[in-house]
Amino acid sequence: MSQWTVETSDATKVVQNGNTFLIANGYLGYRGTLEEMSAKDFVAVNLLGVYDKHGDAWREPVNAPDPLHLTLSVNGEQLTDETPKLAHRQWLDLKAAVHHRQTTFELGGVQVTLTTERFASAADEHLLAGKVSVQVDRPAEVVIDHAIDPKVWDLNGPHFVDEKPITDGILLTTGEGDLVAVTQRVDALQWRSSGTRLSTEAKPGVTYTYTVQALVYTSLDVPAERLVSTITQGLHETDYQDQLAEHKATWAKRWDRSNVQITGDNDADLALRYSLYQLQSIAPHHLDLSIPARGLSGQTYKGAFFWDTEMFMLPFFLRTDPEVARRLLNYRINTLPQALKKAQHYGYQGAFYAWESQADGRDATSDYNVTDVFTGRPMRTYFKDKQIHISAAVAMALWSSYQLTGDVRLLTDGGLQVLIECAKFYYSRSYWSPLKHRFELLDVLGPDEYHERVNNNAYTNRAALATVQAALEGVVVVAKADPERLKEIQQQVDWGTWQARLSDYVVDLYIPEPDADGVIPQFDGYRDLENVFVPAVRDRLLKPNEYWGGAYGVASDTQVIKQADVVLLLKQFQNDYTTEQKLLNWQYYEPRTEHGSTLSASTYALVACEIGKADWAYPFFMQSATVDLTGKSKQFAGGVYIGGTHPAANGGAWMDVVQGFCGLQEVDGRPTVASHLPSHWQSVSFKVCVRGRWYQAQVTQDTATIQPM
Amino acid sequence: MSQWTVETSDATKVVQNGNTFLIANGYLGYRGTLEEMSAKDFVAVNLLGVYDKHGDAWREPVNAPDPLHLTLSVNGEQLTDETPKLAHRQWLDLKAAVHHRQTTFELGGVQVTLTTERFASAADEHLLAGKVSVQVDRPAEVVIDHAIDPKVWDLNGPHFVDEKPITDGILLTTGEGDLVAVTQRVDALQWRSSGTRLSTEAKPGVTYTYTVQALVYTSLDVPAERLVSTITQGLHETDYQDQLAEHKATWAKRWDRSNVQITGDNDADLALRYSLYQLQSIAPHHLDLSIPARGLSGQTYKGAFFWDTEMFMLPFFLRTDPEVARRLLNYRINTLPQALKKAQHYGYQGAFYAWESQADGRDATSDYNVTDVFTGRPMRTYFKDKQIHISAAVAMALWSSYQLTGDVRLLTDGGLQVLIECAKFYYSRSYWSPLKHRFELLDVLGPDEYHERVNNNAYTNRAALATVQAALEGVVVVAKADPERLKEIQQQVDWGTWQARLSDYVVDLYIPEPDADGVIPQFDGYRDLENVFVPAVRDRLLKPNEYWGGAYGVASDTQVIKQADVVLLLKQFQNDYTTEQKLLNWQYYEPRTEHGSTLSASTYALVACEIGKADWAYPFFMQSATVDLTGKSKQFAGGVYIGGTHPAANGGAWMDVVQGFCGLQEVDGRPTVASHLPSHWQSVSFKVCVRGRWYQAQVTQDTATIQPM
Repeated sequence: MSQWTVETSDATKVVQNGNTFLIANGYLGYRGTLEEMSAKDFVAVNLLGVYDKHGDAWREPVNAPDPLHLTLSVNGEQLTDETPKLAHRQWLDLKAAVHHRQTTFELGGVQVTLTTERFASAADEHLLAGKVSVQVDRPAEVVIDHAIDPKVWDLNGPHFVDEKPITDGILLTTGEGDLVAVTQRVDALQWRSSGTRLSTEAKPGVTYTYTVQALVYTSLDVPAERLVSTITQGLHETDYQDQLAEHKATWAKRWDRSNVQITGDNDADLALRYSLYQLQSIAPHHLDLSIPARGLSGQTYKGAFFWDTEMFMLPFFLRTDPEVARRLLNYRINTLPQALKKAQHYGYQGAFYAWESQADGRDATSDYNVTDVFTGRPMRTYFKDKQIHISAAVAMALWSSYQLTGDVRLLTDGGLQVLIECAKFYYSRSYWSPLKHRFELLDVLGPDEYHERVNNNAYTNRAALATVQAALEGVVVVAKADPERLKEIQQQVDWGTWQARLSDYVVDLYIPEPDADGVIPQFDGYRDLENVFVPAVRDRLLKPNEYWGGAYGVASDTQVIKQADVVLLLKQFQNDYTTEQKLLNWQYYEPRTEHGSTLSASTYALVACEIGKADWAYPFFMQSATVDLTGKSKQFAGGVYIGGTHPAANGGAWMDVVQGFCGLQEVDGRPTVASHLPSHWQSVSFKVCVRGRWYQAQVTQDTATIQPM
Repeated sequence: MSQWTVETSDATKVVQNGNTFLIANGYLGYRGTLEEMSAKDFVAVNLLGVYDKHGDAWREPVNAPDPLHLTLSVNGEQLTDETPKLAHRQWLDLKAAVHHRQTTFELGGVQVTLTTERFASAADEHLLAGKVSVQVDRPAEVVIDHAIDPKVWDLNGPHFVDEKPITDGILLTTGEGDLVAVTQRVDALQWRSSGTRLSTEAKPGVTYTYTVQALVYTSLDVPAERLVSTITQGLHETDYQDQLAEHKATWAKRWDRSNVQITGDNDADLALRYSLYQLQSIAPHHLDLSIPARGLSGQTYKGAFFWDTEMFMLPFFLRTDPEVARRLLNYRINTLPQALKKAQHYGYQGAFYAWESQADGRDATSDYNVTDVFTGRPMRTYFKDKQIHISAAVAMALWSSYQLTGDVRLLTDGGLQVLIECAKFYYSRSYWSPLKHRFELLDVLGPDEYHERVNNNAYTNRAALATVQAALEGVVVVAKADPERLKEIQQQVDWGTWQARLSDYVVDLYIPEPDADGVIPQFDGYRDLENVFVPAVRDRLLKPNEYWGGAYGVASDTQVIKQADVVLLLKQFQNDYTTEQKLLNWQYYEPRTEHGSTLSASTYALVACEIGKADWAYPFFMQSATVDLTGKSKQFAGGVYIGGTHPAANGGAWMDVVQGFCGLQEVDGRPTVASHLPSHWQSVSFKVCVRGRWYQAQVTQDTATIQPM
């Protein structure tokens, strides 16, 4: 039976629960905190695509005031952090995407039970709604103040420079001049009300309930002059139960397409489903944007979009929600101008996509992304200027999406320009070695971010090659499908000059090969570094939160790496390598990998499946699938808070099950599956959409079938 | 009148005096400590070219036991650090190269005056000799133990694994298996002697004197089996006064050729003369070796030879002691095989000379040359693998020596191979930019060592160009002079393959030019760095001895540099730049230069003279000329002791006066001078040798003449 509930009875893990029990709808995320909590507990209504920069700090997404906050008093005594909890449960109903809590407090001399539910509407992205109930064990005066809490948790705020009351709510202005409006309607028939204050002489055995509907709008949604009228008119339309029903119906449709059923392993079944809950909660269903690296769980990583989306989330959406997938791809197509600008800034041609891409495509990455825990000084990092494989991630995502969907409009509507501009970028970023007769990509940061400024990172070079190949093949495809459009594009990208260059480049770009031991060196000189495993390097830490990478980190001069790098190469370019090569390199690199990024485990799992080692894969899959349930992830990197949810791990978990354990592949638009199930699993069933057609797959230990529906 | 004496009455500055009052003869250096001092006071008999590596520590030169050590007792009371000094004077007689000290102690109830002299013989490099006298103010029993002190000061020792008594001395074996023998003969007619113990019932008014002659030999000088017989037979030949006379005669010849007389500025006159004393003391008069960066003052910098020799010392020797100059050049010719090996090790062709070259040419540089003062960890540095301008320093030295001397044998006897192999190295180290159509030198460390891993360091690129030009011109010269020999050389260096490559390279190598503001960027992107001056950066130090450079140093992301870099370019390639360009760049870079290397000041002084700013030059010249007198230099770099003497500053001081203030230039073998004297100087006179002919120069404020002698 499917597992649909995630719960806890431990209310003390405030930060972790805030992540685990997130509700979201792609427009806003509401952290899984409790209603009586406030900014100090990391309560946040995190908004997608609304940013502000306070002083010299990082530009980060804006949190809106909290319209679901309540203050509870019983017999004149107010609920505080110290109020004893006699019973407590907090749970997510994944199917309905509704958050619940029930807590019995000892307060004002009585036992009072607070029961709530809430959801971020999937049907109306502006709507945040909830229901609150109170029961007492003996007669008591219960007072609740259910007002919008204007105190906002910020990593690098405050971001609001002005605050004005409006009917039923408040209107705020960010430092960048954007407006954020929040309104609230409380329906409390059983209560006396005065403003936002509700009170009742409660009797035992009676449940006192009210509902709250809140709207959040910003001036990015509607023009500033219509913002207040829109939000105040929006409040009084439908009632809570209807809103909840619409929300559930939307989620039912989602689950119908996306649900994956694992039998024989309830933990895995639940963890994967939870991962898909996260992904579908935070996906931009309403706009051509992308998914922040920490979802909508807070301001970590500046609310920016990373390669995480293309590499680890897009595969899921492409096959279960093509509309969302197209929005994600459109986001990159639409932000090409910023990528062109970034390349130009660094003296290159073509498109250099942002490492941390905010809504308009600008690169939010700081040149100093880590703090030295020994000196308190910012450390120069190279994510922004040298992690050039981001452009390949975009190009490969576009190209593989075209291959999967067969939709040539993806190329004609901007995709081909992206492919060609990314290809130009790699060419212009390359140098020619006159004695070795090859192009090289020098001074880069590969996926393993601990080793900075390396030459010929195998993954980066191969990904650059794939990019240029895609550009050349894309031209051929569009030439057939729409020769007129091709002419326009060719003129825009100066194809006359570039065709010959790029054709040479695919022949002459250096792709590192396995060395005499069969090991593909991660970069030039990698195997000359100290040959130690992860525990030895961990033992050298002087402070637990010091940065492992950079110029002088404990890992920097060793072969210990942060995350899958060569193994990502094996995964991404699976047809380039034999099973034997994959096995040897997996075994070489795994003990040298810290898995210090949540992008790592799912990749190791995938490649393990390919080499027939499902039981090696299993713990990596579970690590990936459960990261937001267990809270076992890094909270700090070199003094900087990096907590939140991990959508790339969520997406990686889906890839592990569907592409790994179930061996899903699509060749020429036809899906196939193959059984690589862990030995204790009985079966997996799921649906996927390929070239517009839906398929039902069923994989057991012995059988693997996929059929059109 | 010439100044010939350097003195102090402050005996407390033990380490500084040890450097300032060094005596040396190119074979060994004896630090300017006092006779009663020992290892804890950095007493050292530092040997040229004898190295040992203890454990994992750096390979460093070996110090021999001290044969001039004494222990003094009066009336049974022994002289210690606490014994009161009633009077003290320590001085160097620069003309004779003899060290003197005279101290009156209150010891054993009497006032006892100890007077000594000592010298490291310039006539016999194995000989260290001294004279000791004692006077008392009332009758007393004086006992002196004048034994070889076997306790040796080491930075990274101990280096002796075995010690054996031999007649009159000891024989030691280093960890590398080399033998070091020290013997001693004491002539003490006025004393009772018993072994090494001398005693007398001293009377007031009588001076009790003895002399010591000590020999130092190693198995690098004579075969191990003849070592003991050689050193014991050597001891009894001549008496002290004859030895001293021979020593003085040798120095008289040196001074006759090298002395520079400055009138109108006694401080400058003395400081320069002292600098020349240092240079001539430590020059390898007996072997084809070079001059360590800290002379023979200790083990700092591993007793290794740096570009310091070619850039800052060779100009002096070339023009005043051609025999020594030729030895210095031969050293590089002889160590070409190691340079070829080093290039090969890093994947390049040609000759990559050692950054810290020990006697056989091996690179003693550690990949971890600095210690992080915050963590105590070694820091990865790039002196060894990326400071590639060392090969150019060697090549330019050879080529300019050929031009100055006109001696084509320098080229035919190995020099041309060096030029060509260095040229091959730069070509193989370069990459071709296909869009910019030029060769570039990427990922280097320039003279300013604070900015690591930069691209297109202007100095390095220009020096590489000079190297390749010299190779091409060298071939033309040898073609004329000795076509048969040229054929042999061309075969050895595969000239058939390389001629075309190198001919293209001199056209296509990128040489950074002045930007729109007229500033020559030190490297790609230099002017995008934070634009601050030195004091602002100094204020950011958290610890006084932290490293300014590296990845995260206070200077690293700013325009503040360690030492002359673009200004060295202006000096080295003076004909490439207009006076206006030199002026603008001097003024731009000077406030951004820490002068954290003693190579810096003399270069700024030289270029200041060229642009007609002798009074700007003067303080830099004085800083350079007095560094070993004042002791004002860095003693630590990132936790590592770097103290000692500064021969590059000594040589730079000579260049400042002769080439700067007196404008010496040689065109086609004919020297010219021009007056750029500081305004308070009256005149400078000196001699130089050009193409085997000696010239006498005389420069005043208004006149400048140079005449063959």
